[in-house]
Formats: sequence, structure tokens, C-alpha cells
Amino acid sequence: MIPRYSRPDMVAIWEPESKFQIWFEIEAHATDALAELGVVPKEAAKAIWAKGKFDVERIDEIEREVKHDVIAFLTNVAENVGEEARFMHQGMTSSDVLDTCLAVQLTRATDILLADMDKLLAALKTRAFEHKLTPTIGRSHGIHGEPVTFGLKLAQAYAEFERNRERLVAARKEIATCAISGAVGTFANIDPKVEAHVAEKMGLEVEPVSTQVIPRDRHAQYFATLAVIASSVERLAVEIRHLQRTEVLEAEEYFSPGQKGSSAMPHKRNPILTENLTGLARMVRSFALPAMENVALWHERDISHSSVERMIGPDATITLDFALARLTGVVEKLLVYPERMMKNLDRMGGLVHSQRVLLALTQAGISREDSYRIVQRNAMKVWESDGEIALLDLLKADPDVTAKLSEAELEERFNLDYHFKHVDTIFTRVFGN
Amino acid sequence: MIPRYSRPDMVAIWEPESKFQIWFEIEAHATDALAELGVVPKEAAKAIWAKGKFDVERIDEIEREVKHDVIAFLTNVAENVGEEARFMHQGMTSSDVLDTCLAVQLTRATDILLADMDKLLAALKTRAFEHKLTPTIGRSHGIHGEPVTFGLKLAQAYAEFERNRERLVAARKEIATCAISGAVGTFANIDPKVEAHVAEKMGLEVEPVSTQVIPRDRHAQYFATLAVIASSVERLAVEIRHLQRTEVLEAEEYFSPGQKGSSAMPHKRNPILTENLTGLARMVRSFALPAMENVALWHERDISHSSVERMIGPDATITLDFALARLTGVVEKLLVYPERMMKNLDRMGGLVHSQRVLLALTQAGISREDSYRIVQRNAMKVWESDGEIALLDLLKADPDVTAKLSEAELEERFNLDYHFKHVDTIFTRVFGN
Amino acid sequence: MIPRYSRPDMVAIWEPESKFQIWFEIEAHATDALAELGVVPKEAAKAIWAKGKFDVERIDEIEREVKHDVIAFLTNVAENVGEEARFMHQGMTSSDVLDTCLAVQLTRATDILLADMDKLLAALKTRAFEHKLTPTIGRSHGIHGEPVTFGLKLAQAYAEFERNRERLVAARKEIATCAISGAVGTFANIDPKVEAHVAEKMGLEVEPVSTQVIPRDRHAQYFATLAVIASSVERLAVEIRHLQRTEVLEAEEYFSPGQKGSSAMPHKRNPILTENLTGLARMVRSFALPAMENVALWHERDISHSSVERMIGPDATITLDFALARLTGVVEKLLVYPERMMKNLDRMGGLVHSQRVLLALTQAGISREDSYRIVQRNAMKVWESDGEIALLDLLKADPDVTAKLSEAELEERFNLDYHFKHVDTIFTRVFGN
Amino acid sequence: MIPRYSRPDMVAIWEPESKFQIWFEIEAHATDALAELGVVPKEAAKAIWAKGKFDVERIDEIEREVKHDVIAFLTNVAENVGEEARFMHQGMTSSDVLDTCLAVQLTRATDILLADMDKLLAALKTRAFEHKLTPTIGRSHGIHGEPVTFGLKLAQAYAEFERNRERLVAARKEIATCAISGAVGTFANIDPKVEAHVAEKMGLEVEPVSTQVIPRDRHAQYFATLAVIASSVERLAVEIRHLQRTEVLEAEEYFSPGQKGSSAMPHKRNPILTENLTGLARMVRSFALPAMENVALWHERDISHSSVERMIGPDATITLDFALARLTGVVEKLLVYPERMMKNLDRMGGLVHSQRVLLALTQAGISREDSYRIVQRNAMKVWESDGEIALLDLLKADPDVTAKLSEAELEERFNLDYHFKHVDTIFTRVFGN
Repeated sequence: MIPRYSRPDMVAIWEPESKFQIWFEIEAHATDALAELGVVPKEAAKAIWAKGKFDVERIDEIEREVKHDVIAFLTNVAENVGEEARFMHQGMTSSDVLDTCLAVQLTRATDILLADMDKLLAALKTRAFEHKLTPTIGRSHGIHGEPVTFGLKLAQAYAEFERNRERLVAARKEIATCAISGAVGTFANIDPKVEAHVAEKMGLEVEPVSTQVIPRDRHAQYFATLAVIASSVERLAVEIRHLQRTEVLEAEEYFSPGQKGSSAMPHKRNPILTENLTGLARMVRSFALPAMENVALWHERDISHSSVERMIGPDATITLDFALARLTGVVEKLLVYPERMMKNLDRMGGLVHSQRVLLALTQAGISREDSYRIVQRNAMKVWESDGEIALLDLLKADPDVTAKLSEAELEERFNLDYHFKHVDTIFTRVFGN
Repeated sequence: MIPRYSRPDMVAIWEPESKFQIWFEIEAHATDALAELGVVPKEAAKAIWAKGKFDVERIDEIEREVKHDVIAFLTNVAENVGEEARFMHQGMTSSDVLDTCLAVQLTRATDILLADMDKLLAALKTRAFEHKLTPTIGRSHGIHGEPVTFGLKLAQAYAEFERNRERLVAARKEIATCAISGAVGTFANIDPKVEAHVAEKMGLEVEPVSTQVIPRDRHAQYFATLAVIASSVERLAVEIRHLQRTEVLEAEEYFSPGQKGSSAMPHKRNPILTENLTGLARMVRSFALPAMENVALWHERDISHSSVERMIGPDATITLDFALARLTGVVEKLLVYPERMMKNLDRMGGLVHSQRVLLALTQAGISREDSYRIVQRNAMKVWESDGEIALLDLLKADPDVTAKLSEAELEERFNLDYHFKHVDTIFTRVFGN
Repeated sequence: MIPRYSRPDMVAIWEPESKFQIWFEIEAHATDALAELGVVPKEAAKAIWAKGKFDVERIDEIEREVKHDVIAFLTNVAENVGEEARFMHQGMTSSDVLDTCLAVQLTRATDILLADMDKLLAALKTRAFEHKLTPTIGRSHGIHGEPVTFGLKLAQAYAEFERNRERLVAARKEIATCAISGAVGTFANIDPKVEAHVAEKMGLEVEPVSTQVIPRDRHAQYFATLAVIASSVERLAVEIRHLQRTEVLEAEEYFSPGQKGSSAMPHKRNPILTENLTGLARMVRSFALPAMENVALWHERDISHSSVERMIGPDATITLDFALARLTGVVEKLLVYPERMMKNLDRMGGLVHSQRVLLALTQAGISREDSYRIVQRNAMKVWESDGEIALLDLLKADPDVTAKLSEAELEERFNLDYHFKHVDTIFTRVFGN
Repeated sequence: MIPRYSRPDMVAIWEPESKFQIWFEIEAHATDALAELGVVPKEAAKAIWAKGKFDVERIDEIEREVKHDVIAFLTNVAENVGEEARFMHQGMTSSDVLDTCLAVQLTRATDILLADMDKLLAALKTRAFEHKLTPTIGRSHGIHGEPVTFGLKLAQAYAEFERNRERLVAARKEIATCAISGAVGTFANIDPKVEAHVAEKMGLEVEPVSTQVIPRDRHAQYFATLAVIASSVERLAVEIRHLQRTEVLEAEEYFSPGQKGSSAMPHKRNPILTENLTGLARMVRSFALPAMENVALWHERDISHSSVERMIGPDATITLDFALARLTGVVEKLLVYPERMMKNLDRMGGLVHSQRVLLALTQAGISREDSYRIVQRNAMKVWESDGEIALLDLLKADPDVTAKLSEAELEERFNLDYHFKHVDTIFTRVFGN
């Protein structure tokens, strides 16, 4: 966890104080259920809620002796509750507390991420509609293709993050389970009703079959989903970095008045936020791997997953939270330059319209192969002139073309609006009506 | 693709013949829709279906010249269809064909994987019920914990693979989309109705917004899901490898009469199938990474994803298909040794019952901390005797214990069936009623 | 292994024929050594060399029965050699053959890769000297920085691949070891002299301590090194893709006469080779992971590494061989456009010289902070004019500047050659004298 | 960075205070060299050393305004040095400071790691010699193979970590370079002599060609090497976890008096340190990936590597330092149980000697295939009896065996010491004379 890439609400979820508070609630709810079942006195359950307190430093102190965090916690709570504390944790095992706590932390973290995504989606939608019909060149392979609109680019991002939102909702469900099933998951010393009660109180589902631990395929799927979302963050970040390149400069990250781009070159305005997002995406992506390696625990469990999760639990969620928020800010404040977009679109001498001419020739009766050759030989001249020669002019002078197409027909093929007639269709697909 | 780790049905999906057949169907259906819209003659559409043929070698030959696979394919089909072939591919771009084809291949591959999982689930269920009450020791950290049943182990695996099946159904939905949207996804030269028609005919959904390509977050999520499934394969494989260890030997892979375990040591019977599965799982897991790196294509697309998918498309699905089938065979034919399970369970001198004694002491009024110390001091003696001393005997001789618990009460704590009273509950949760 | 991304010499190393030939040589050399030690008759050793033959199909047939590849091989060779074949493989274990064979295959593969790198280095050097003083803009963050030369870019790539070559030499040494140490590596039934003899004959070093297998940390380091090299391939590929962007177009992959860039857009000339290399790099990089997961084999060995290596052994070396050769071709035939480089360099109105002005002001006695502010305020105007306004003109009109610097002094700061005075130094560092 | 998995010396390297101190030294040494060259006044260089101070909080404060860490640092130092501070950083760029600082931090971190490895190697050597001839069963596939000694296991680990040490020395060399080459690496505004001076003072080599940044293939190779070392940590950890399994129990992590194994089961002694190391190894391994993705920076550099390195720089080195130290402690204090080793070795009824019988039969004139069948049919009976029947007894009763081998000859084949005659050879190879 790096302070500069962290936001306080997400950090708070992973602080010791939060963790022990969740542990306490799990234990206290479990004792309630045990009392209801008559296994422990109802007074004990009440006493735990009433007198239950813990102190992070004292727990750390005890853990240094016993080398076991849950025992240290229980000992500290017992110091405050007194004799009735012995009714806590009856028939439970440490992992009942640890794994259920992790489930609570991850669901809370996911709720923040979902809220982050809602803000990002809102920003994308606003900017998409703003630029719904702002023409810009579509590029495949980094090479000018045919016209699109800047709104379409953002609509694509919106659709991608909406899918990511759905994936995240599914991933949340994956890890939102509670296990209070005892030493090896058989409920030998604890009634399954306790699990059901704690699950309900903590906002979780019951884990159908646990083996001291909640199975780690759930967490693997969860972190893999975060990794996919991070890859989408990278995609949009890379798009913006490309748009801000000196030669392209169709959009720019907002540059605040006091900001300095380079200690050496005062003229620089660098896309550092999206570059930063590119790096953060790499990190979130990498966390999926150890999460997957955690799945194959030995027999009913080993504890190799624990050190991994102590790292990636906070790091993946904190970093993705920060990244989504930063990306939202970038989108909201993005400086967009429609004039430059048009200038770039025009810079290739009309080559972007080559396909429409190809189709026109085909429809006028020339074979596809011949049409291709005719258009390509003219297009290559334009290409080599670096856009100084206009494709339309060349075509008007090519007898193989003029034999089939009139000047007016040719000119119609260079009409920009032609390309945008289905923008509405796509927007309706993406944003609904 | 390694022949020894491949099965023919899955391999067939990825052969050039299959790919070109799908390309042909996409083009022919698209031409149907174009004819229906009046863009091309209906006769052309009919001619394509009637005379459309291709030859893999001829396509390869053409591709060596034009260095573009879809153009090579179209040229070869045109050689067979004749002049009307020029109405094929009108307003389309290569990726319309390539990406929709990949969607078809991946959905078909997934259908095989789903069938594989059904067989695995059936095998797990059968063996789980067979051993529903076969006692075996539950192990955490590789150390004896408390009793479970062998059926519970398999029920856990069943639940895990049922989750994986659901994930796979979701992953299939992710990649089952069709894009026929033209050069940069704007439908500039092709009506969206064509896309809708082809999608329906090929069993796909329409991609809401494409950018020459179908967005690769879909494929990233798909391959990440295969990676998680592979991790579960590894988990079960590792479990069986552990059970077959010489010192444990509670279960064994089926060993066929002619088989040789070692060229040097004739006595060996090695868990080579599950070791092999462990390695294959590593491979399928690794394929998720380049799939995620494919997401951030430049602008409307670059083609860096293509070489990756030519490799991992076949390799991930073929390997996982093989692994699931192999794992199913291992489960179906697994040799299970209940007597050895019981022998192992007993070998620790009754230590596996230590928790129940701890709880009994607590309930008899001793503090949790004191109870723990009393049980631990006896347990450590048993441990150090390597199970030669029985825990029950020591407890019967410990005045701190006998002050609170009678002999009969103590003996009741060493009853094995006590641990299995909720097996039914768990089986109902996992397998339903 | 994908034919389209494979070259025959590297493929040949991994074919069954090659593998069995190496097996045969290992066995025959080992029998020689055994004969020399008097363990087996010298006639037997001679007979093996004289009559030793194998047939891939027959071996496969036998393996289907015995399910063990080395036993199948030995059986087939025995069918040809006759009775004296029983002296082969005395005291050896299968892994002695398999692991030593893998060492031979990997060293041969590495020799091809080293030759590939030599060709790449040669191409880079030639083009670097060709463009040693071709001015081009240096870009950080995708934004124009200060002038460099195109030769410097290639010199950087040269230095990087020279490092990679050294890494590859070290990686070759890692995996070039021979183990003939018997069932668990103790030489219980085979004299260490046999190992020494085979090692020498096969061009390997003796593995100091093996445990049936050669330890897999060696292979992990090897494949990790290939992954790093692949990352450098990606770096250079990405550089070229950037240079070929429509708006930049400072260099281009060679575009052959018959080639078609797009089935839909006849004007396209796409950097498909370097995009392809980007994808291939992702694959080679991903193979490092399962190789690392192979390290932690159980006890003296398990066989989980085997399926991984059957895949990544060929796939990583074949793909990297192809990638290096393709990259070499791209570099050799790269179309370089110095005029466009100069045009791009000039397009920012001289902003690229801002640092020199900053330094001049500082040296003229203005504080660093004030100098920065003075230059930045002028630079921002140039930036916002999209290079229409020249920085030099603005500075000449800024009284804070002219108070300290004369026109001539200012103009000197806009001299391009100033930036290249140390190109020789760098070239000498990289290429020697 | 997780406090529980961190050690103070390594943490200190990565603290802001250390980083700024290194920045200061780089800047001050650079100013010395500039003064020597006559570019800046010698008094300025002296003033910087004399009055140069910084305050972490003040730097943070400035950075919040200027959003650039190096500028913030320079500003703060200037506040203390006064007017002469303007001679600092002349002709340099931020990355000159940042990348050279990272090199210093990584070399210092590596020195700690090398010291860690020396301690680990010493511990392994001591324990290896202690158990040089302690017999234990060698296991392939988890199945008993033939006898080895416990010392051989440790000698293998020693040899593996000695290789890792060499790799780490090479990796240290990779990243120990200094770049003071200005905005795009051309030395346009700074003499290469400054770089040479700073390099020497900071204990680094000169980077032959930098491009504002030191090329990231160096760091990729570095972190990949740490990942391989982590994989070796995992291997030894997994070995110990296996040895501590209840059924095996040939060795155990030291268990301190106050320690509690389980909150629920007082009898447990779990290998939690080595399980923890298994998880930590997964983390260090995963960090190699983003480091490799960092290589392909755009053009002369982008800053996407920075956020990655802020995380993995500290996390990888701190975690590996902790892991090596923990592993050393585990090895030093490992409880080894030779009696149990012998008991396990004997538990298979002598099957571990099967190969020697096979060889004896072959040498007595029976074909390899027949010998194998004879031994296997007896071995399988022993196997099925779970070691209750002794292989020697069965062989003595098998006429096919007794026809070729006398009782004495058979018994000689079951001599344990036979297997250890080359232990000395191996120890000499590994540890020298």
C-alpha cells in the first residue's frame, strides 16, 4: 500500500481496527446464536456485546507471545469481558473468523469499487453525449482508417466498463460467503444454525461446504476479475496517452496552473496521470497470479494463502479504487480538441474515404480485385505525397474510375456525415433509449 | 498443441478446414442479409451458397502472395463462385469475419468444456455418495486435524467444479458476440441488420459497440476463467497426489496391468496422471496473462492480439478439455482404501479428539486458557510418543481433568460418529435433496 | 507450435526423431563408459553403436502399452540390437536420459538464438551508423522533448540486445548440464565417471547434485531470460509501431508490391510485423511463469514439470527464434524518412529548445525558479498555437529575457547540432572504437 | 510492505529520508563535477555540501503544489542553501536523479540479500554435514524410491542457493548503473564527465546509452532473478512441509514453548513458517511480470514504470529479505528425526531395494524385460501388503530368482550403505574439499 496511490475509505477497510471490529462482531453474533441454541448462557452473549472491547496494541503484544492472532484477540477481549468470555468461539476455529472477516472486507471494498465504477460510467456517458457527433479519425494499427466520432470512442469505453461492472457484481457474489463450520468444516462442535445467523447478520451467504477455510477458487475468480478491470483501465489510459502525443494532440489531460511537466523542459505537458494508470494496471493484473496459485491448498487447508492475501487483499482493492477514481477525474476534465481532430482527419488527402470508392467501383460492375487495384494505385500516390495530393483529384483523373463514376458520384463518396448515420443506433445499444 | 495432451473433437474446432467453413458461413449469411436489404442481387447470395467452396492449400498459396488471410480466402472462394463473388464481403472488414469466427470457435469449444465438466461432476457425485460416510482424517497444514469423510472431500470438489461450471457459462456468454460493423465499427457501409442476421444464424448475440474488433476484455475474462478452472483441477490433482504418497496411501490412481512405473525401480506406482494435471494446470493458468495484455489495443484496434490468440485459443481449450477428461477418468477409477484411512486416522493416539476435550473442560467451568493448557500438555506427550501413548489414557490420569470429567464423559469425547452428524446437511447443501 | 510462427531449424530440434537420436547417443556413450569401467562387455557397447536403431512409430506403439516413453524407446532399440541391448541403461533412470536430452536440445536451441541475435545486432549496427546523425525528435511521455538522432535510438536497441546476448550466454550455461546419477541421484548403481563421460561427449557440464532430475531453478532462470529478451523485442517493435503512426510516419515497415493492408481500405500500410512481434513477445513472456512454478518439485522429484516443458520447451524457443528473425528483417528493410523526422522536429515552433534557454537565463543570473516561469509562460503560448508561433520570436519580445540575453545569444540556443556533440561518445561506448 | 513480513535494515533503504539523502548526494556530486569542469562556481559546490539540507514534510508540501517530486526536492534544498542552489541540477533531468537513486537503492538492497544468502548457505552447509550420512528414503512422485541421506537433500538446496547467489551477483551488476545524461540522454547540456564522477562516487558503472531513463530490461532481469530465487525458497519450504506431515514427520519446524498451533485443536504443531514462505514466494514471483511489462516504454521513455517500481522495488526486496532470513532460521533450528526417517525407510518391506535386484538379475543373464517382470510381480505383492510382507522373503522363495542368485547374493542387495558410497563425491562437488 503506497500512500500516494491510496484513498482513505478503502484504506480504512484494511486497517487493524476495522479487522478486529469485524472479528468482534462475528464472535458476538456467533455467541448470540449459540445462546439461542442453549449451548451457552444468554447472559454470556449479552455480556460480550456489553463489555466486549479490544485494543490493537494489546493484541499485538499478546500475539508476540502466542504467535497466533485469533488467540491473541480472544485473550484481549476476555481481559475486558471477564469470565463469561469463555463462551465465545465455542466450537469455532480461527479460520471461521478470519475467512468470514475477509469476506466482509472484500464485499465492503467491492461496494466502494462499484461506486467508483458508477462515477466513471457517469463521466464517460456525459462526455460521450457531449462528443456524440465530434468527428475524428478512426485508427487501426495506428494508421488512419475511416472517420468515427469521439463520442463513439467513449461509448465503447462505457460499454466495456459496464461489462466490468457486471463482472464485479458477479465477483462480489463469489466472495460474499460465511463459514462457521469448525476445525475441518464438519460442524462437529458447532451447529450449522450459528453459521446461518452470522451470515445473515454480516450480509453474507452461507458457504455450502468449507474445509476449515472458504475455498480459494472464489478469491482467484475475484482477483482475476479485478485484473481484467485493470486491463480495461489500461486500455482507456493508453487511448488518452496516444491522443495526447505531440503529433496527434486531439485531447489532453487537464494541466493545472501550478503544475510543472519537466524539471528540464519548461514546455512539456505530459500525460502523466494515464501513464501512471498504465503502471497501476500492471500491478493489479499481476495480483491475479498468486491468487490463482492459492487455490491448490493441501488437503483441508494450508496457510500459504494467508501471506498472499495480507498483501493483495489491500493492495489490489486500494490500487484499483485509486485507479478508477483517477481515471474518472481524467475523463471528466479531459481537454478535447475537435479542431485538431478535424485537421488530423483531413491530413491524409482524403485517403480515409478509399473504401467507399472501392465499393462504388464494385457496385458499378468492376470485379473486387480490379477495384482494389485501381483504388490502391491512386491511394499509394497520396500516401507518398504525405497527403499533399488529394485522392479525389487523382480519382477524377483516372480513366478507369471515370469510366464508371461521374464527378458527382465520386464527390458523394467523400461526404463525412455518411459515416455517422448509425451513431444513434450504437448509442441506443450502449446507453438505452 | 501437443498431440499427447489433445482430444480430437476439440482439435477439430481449431483446424483450418473448420475455420474457413465458419468464415464461409458468415460471408454467405451476410450476403443473404445484404440481398434481403436489396444491396446485392438475391441471385448472388444464392450462388454463393450453391457454388461456394474453398481449398485450404489454395488459400495458403494465395496468402503467401497477398499476405492477408481473409483476402486470400475471398479470392479462392471467388475462383469457385465466379463473378457473383464480388457481392460477398460488401461493406465488411476482415475482422468482421475473424472475430465472429473466433466467437463461434470459442463457443463451440466451451460447449465441449461444459460437457467435460458435466462428466466430471457426475463422477465426483457418484464417488462422493459412495464414500459419504467413509471416515478419514481431515488435515490442516498437512497435520492431522479432526475426522472428516472421504465423501466430504469429494463433495467439496463437486461444489468447486459446480461454481466453475457457472463461471464457464458466464464466460461463454462473454465471448459469444458477433460483429459485422465495417472498417472502424460505424456501419458506414453495412446496415446493422446484416450483423443481426449473421448473429442469429451463428448462435451469437450482437456486439453492442465494436471498433473493427470485438473488444478484448471479453476474451481476457474468458481465459481468466479457464485459468481459475485449471487452478481447481490442480487442487484436486494435488489432493490425490497427497493421498497416494507412500506414507499416506489412502487412495491411488488406477494402475493398469501393462503399466510400468519406473524404468529403474519396478516397485513404483506413481500418481503420474495427477502430476501431469498439475503441470497442465500451470499452462492453462499462464495463458490468462497474454489474454489480459491483449485488452489495451491501440485506438480502434491493433493486431497484436492475433498471434496470441492463434496460440492460446487452441492451446487453452485443448489442454483444459484434455485435463478435465483425464481428471474425470482419475476420479472414476480412483482406488480408495478405507482401511488405510482408518489406520491413519488412529495413528496419532487419539489426538484428533483433542478439541472436544477442550470444549468439555470449558463447559465444565474451566477457563478457555486453562483448558487449552491442560489439553496441550497431554497432547504434546502423545505427539512426542508418535502415537504410541493414547491421549485418552493420559487424560484419565490427569487430576485436573478428572476433577471435572468422569471416565464415561471422557470416552464419549472420543466417539468418531459424533463428527459426522452434519454430513447430511452438507450433502444436501451441495447436491440438493 | 504454430507453423506460421516457426522456422525449420529450430523446429527440427524438437522433433521426435531428434529427441530419440539424442537419447540413443546418451545411452550409447553411457554404455561405452560402463564398458570402460568393466561393468558391461565392450562388445555390447560396440553392438549398440553398430546396430542401434529406432523407429518413432514403433516407439509410440510400445508406449501405448507400457505408458512409459523411455522404456518404450529401450524396448524398440533392443528389438534392433538384440540380446546385448540388456547392457544399455545399466544403473540409469529415465530422467538421466530425459533431462540430459533436454539439456542438449536447449543448448542447441540457444545456439540458434545466439546466431539470431548476432544477425539482429549486425542489422542494428548497420542502420545505427547509417543514421548516426539523422536528427529526430526525442520524446518522453509521447511528447516532444529535445533532439536526438535516429542512430542513437538504434544504438540504444543495440546495447539492449547486447545485454540480452550476454544474458542468453549465461542462461545457456545454466541449462547445459548432464545428469547420469541413477534413481535418486546417489550414483548407487552407476559410477560418476559415466556421467562425466556422457557430459563431455554431449558438450555439457556435470550436474553437481541431481535428485533423479536436474534441478528446475536452472530452467526457470533460462525461460525467465527468454522472457526478458522477448520484452526487449516488444520494446523495439513498439518503437517502430509508434514511428509508423499516420501522424508521425518517420519510419515504416517495408511494404512489398503484392501486399494488401486491409480488405476494406486499399490505402492502408500497417505495421503488422511489429504488431505481430508485440503479441509474440507476450507469449514468450508468459512461458516464464509455469517454468518458475516448476521449481518446487516434491522431494527428489515429481513429474509435473514434464507437461509444462513439452509445451514451453519448443514453444518458447521456436517463437523467440521466429521473433528475432522477423525483427531482424524489419530492421534491415525499415524505410526511414529523415525529411519527415525533421518536419516533425520543427512542428512545435522551437519548443524543443526550451531547456537551453532556461539554462542560459539561469547562467545569466536569474534564479532557477524565475527562469522556469519565464520560459514556461512563453512556451505555453507556442503550445497553444500548435507550433504556429515560434518560441524564438516570443523570447525576443520578452523584456525579462532580452534584459539578460542578446538576440545572437538567444539564436545560438536554437542550434540543432549543439545536441549531437556527444553522439560519438555514446557510439564509442556502445560499439567500441 | 507489510510490517509483519519486513525487517528494519531493508525497510530503511526505501524510506523517504534515505531516498532524499541519495538524491542529495547525487546532486552534490554532480555539482562538484560541474565545478571541476568550470561550468559552475566551486563555491556553489561547496555551499551545497555545507548548507544542503532537506525536510521530508516540506518536500511533500511543495510537491502538492508543483506535482513534481524532483522539483519539490530542489526547491526545498534551495530554501536551505540559498542563491547558490541555482547551480544544482544544471543540465540534468529528473530521471538522472531518480534512476541513479533507484540503482543505489537496489544495489544496497541486493547487498543485504547477498548477506542473507550467505547466512542461509552457512546454515544449509552446517546441517548438511551434520546429516551427511543420516539415511532417509528418497522419494520420486511422492513414492518411496531408493535411499538417500538427509545431508544430500540439504546439499542439493545448498547448490541451488549457491546458483541463486551467483544469479543475484549478476543481477546486481545489471542494475548498478548511473545515468546523468540530460533530458533525452544526449548529454546536450551536461558533460559525460559528470556522469562518470557521480557513478564512481555512488559505486555504480556508467550507463552506456540512456534515453532520459536507464533502460528497463535491466530491472526486468533483476526482478526475474528475485522471482527465481523465490521459487527456490518455495522448493525448500515445500520439502519441509512434506517432511512435517503427520504421516511422515521426519523433520519439524522448531516449536517454541509459548506457541499455539490452533485455537481449536491443542495438539497441533503446524509448519506455518514454511507455509508462510510458500505464500511469500508466490508474491515475489508475481512481481517479475510488471517489471517485464515495464520494458517497452514509449520512445525515449514514458513514466508507466514508475508506479510499478514504487511498489515492487520495496515489496520484492523487503519480502525476499524476510523470506531468506525466515528460511535460514527454519533450517538452523529444524528438528530432525533420524529414527523416524529409518522407520519410514523400512516401512515398505524392502521395496526400495528393488532396482538392485533387477540389476543383479540382468547381470546374471536374464533379459532386462524378464528381470523387470520378475521383480515387479514380487514387488506388487509387497506393495499390496502395505509393507507387511518383506520383499527379500518373497525373492528367496521365487525359483526364477533363486535359479540365478544365492541367498547371500540377494541379501547383499538389501545393504543400505551400498547407496551412500558416492556421498563423498557429491559433497566434494558441492562444498569443495
